[in-house]
Amino acid sequence: MMALGIDLGGTSIKTAVVDITGAPVGEGKEKTPAEDGVEACVEAMLAAAGEAINMAGLRREQLTGAGIGVPGVVLPAKGLVVEATNLTGWVNVPLRDIMSRRLGLRVELANDANAAALGEARFGAGRNVKNLVLFTLGTGIGGGIIINGDILVGANGMGGEIGHTLIEMSRPRPCGCERFGCVEAYAGALGIVKRAHEALAEDWRKHSALHEVAEREKLEAHHVFDLAWDGDFLAKEIIAKTAHALAAGITNILHTLDPELVLLAGGITKAGPRFLEQVRSMVGEMALRQVRDTRVEYALLGDKAGVTGAAAMVLAA
Amino acid sequence: MMALGIDLGGTSIKTAVVDITGAPVGEGKEKTPAEDGVEACVEAMLAAAGEAINMAGLRREQLTGAGIGVPGVVLPAKGLVVEATNLTGWVNVPLRDIMSRRLGLRVELANDANAAALGEARFGAGRNVKNLVLFTLGTGIGGGIIINGDILVGANGMGGEIGHTLIEMSRPRPCGCERFGCVEAYAGALGIVKRAHEALAEDWRKHSALHEVAEREKLEAHHVFDLAWDGDFLAKEIIAKTAHALAAGITNILHTLDPELVLLAGGITKAGPRFLEQVRSMVGEMALRQVRDTRVEYALLGDKAGVTGAAAMVLAA
Repeated sequence: MMALGIDLGGTSIKTAVVDITGAPVGEGKEKTPAEDGVEACVEAMLAAAGEAINMAGLRREQLTGAGIGVPGVVLPAKGLVVEATNLTGWVNVPLRDIMSRRLGLRVELANDANAAALGEARFGAGRNVKNLVLFTLGTGIGGGIIINGDILVGANGMGGEIGHTLIEMSRPRPCGCERFGCVEAYAGALGIVKRAHEALAEDWRKHSALHEVAEREKLEAHHVFDLAWDGDFLAKEIIAKTAHALAAGITNILHTLDPELVLLAGGITKAGPRFLEQVRSMVGEMALRQVRDTRVEYALLGDKAGVTGAAAMVLAA
Repeated sequence: MMALGIDLGGTSIKTAVVDITGAPVGEGKEKTPAEDGVEACVEAMLAAAGEAINMAGLRREQLTGAGIGVPGVVLPAKGLVVEATNLTGWVNVPLRDIMSRRLGLRVELANDANAAALGEARFGAGRNVKNLVLFTLGTGIGGGIIINGDILVGANGMGGEIGHTLIEMSRPRPCGCERFGCVEAYAGALGIVKRAHEALAEDWRKHSALHEVAEREKLEAHHVFDLAWDGDFLAKEIIAKTAHALAAGITNILHTLDPELVLLAGGITKAGPRFLEQVRSMVGEMALRQVRDTRVEYALLGDKAGVTGAAAMVLAA
């Protein structure tokens, strides 16, 4: 039993034909024509799908179906992409039917972070776990929730938007969503960089080595992590605050859903085991006794989580 | 088809035999021997159960079973009450088997707030809704989450502990759970009273009418609400902050679970439609556009939610 996964990203489309274990037997990739409208994206998805199917040496009709992860708000039960802000023209697109007709296959849709959560649950760090929450940590923070092995979609397709849970009321930082005090504003890569610039402005005697980096090139989150592990006092403080904010977001999930497992995915996982230990230790301090020992781990599938999770939607468990 | 519900509270045990619509056809009540151990509580539950069954004019074997709501941490799948802090001696009690043997009936357990959420979902404000979240607003704040018509229990029985989600990091108020910055610390009745005393200490010219109340009697949350509706500036400010904190907690739920409906239950519902309007309006400001219009309502069943929800666990939907 094989299925096709399509991960429609803002810059590229990745496809894979995967078997029941999630192993890819064929892969494809195309650039996303993000500004050229729905039709152009559909054609690019079909091209990338064709590459994966050919590489697998299969015919379409040998597949159980295709799953598509979409970077936007999706209503899977209606087969609808409600909106996808980074893709021009994507408003209320009946993508399931469009792709099902073109592929001649059963098609299922999901939000991309939700698909990634399903991928990790079925084939990655969450194998044998039925209830988990995935944080996708990049420039922004997204997420996906798996309950009893299935994606929690929500009434409006907004289940798992856990980067935009609020953790600060009295002195909230502004967030990319134009609101204030979200986890993303504190623990997203953009938040880390903003906080670093603020701290540098206050460190007028230039004790921190971050100054040299910022004078040499555009400051990025990984610079802050690297210098923190080198012992730079200012970088360490920023990373500690990042871990604290993320731990607050995780604690809120533990007190709401009490999942078996919390996974962290995305660029921040490159920060390595020391950051993970910091986050775990802060969750241990912040969470109620009964959930304090809930496993918090890095995800395992990297950028394959989305495409394999998309395929998992049409593979029987 | 009739079922028995038992609501084991910290001060009283309420029982009801309910029909498939949730209507009680018999009720019972006993004082909870909270300090006398498990065995005494079991006997009191059996007595209260007998009263309800007699009043219904039924024999035990005509019931489909009994559900029990317990004020503590419950693992329903194991039939276990892990702990119930307000009841002496309740640690790892296999209550399902104990009660099933004594009643000769199928028995199911739930946390009391979770049972109340199920009661509202099946028979109350959440009829025809499959996904809802209930906040129980009293001295403290608890909650229950219904996903696809079922209680979300969580891996450790801590699902729906939404009063202890964190909404403030930089200047957090202490909470009854010995942690800091929880919704409960801001929007629980105890939090309201504490905030009122702080505000009175600062209002040294005694402009607020709350001073008179506090000098006359023990200040309670309902005093603050009453004076807020009378236009007292200080009471209004405290209630606005309460609504803001509760709206933050609700917003976090909307961005995590995206339920169809959020219900508010408990003493605070006596604050009436104006408070509800304030909360709704603040959720409207704080929540992401896509979930901003999610219904926020008062629960309907009052103190019957727990006992009917308990019964609902053994009534087929």
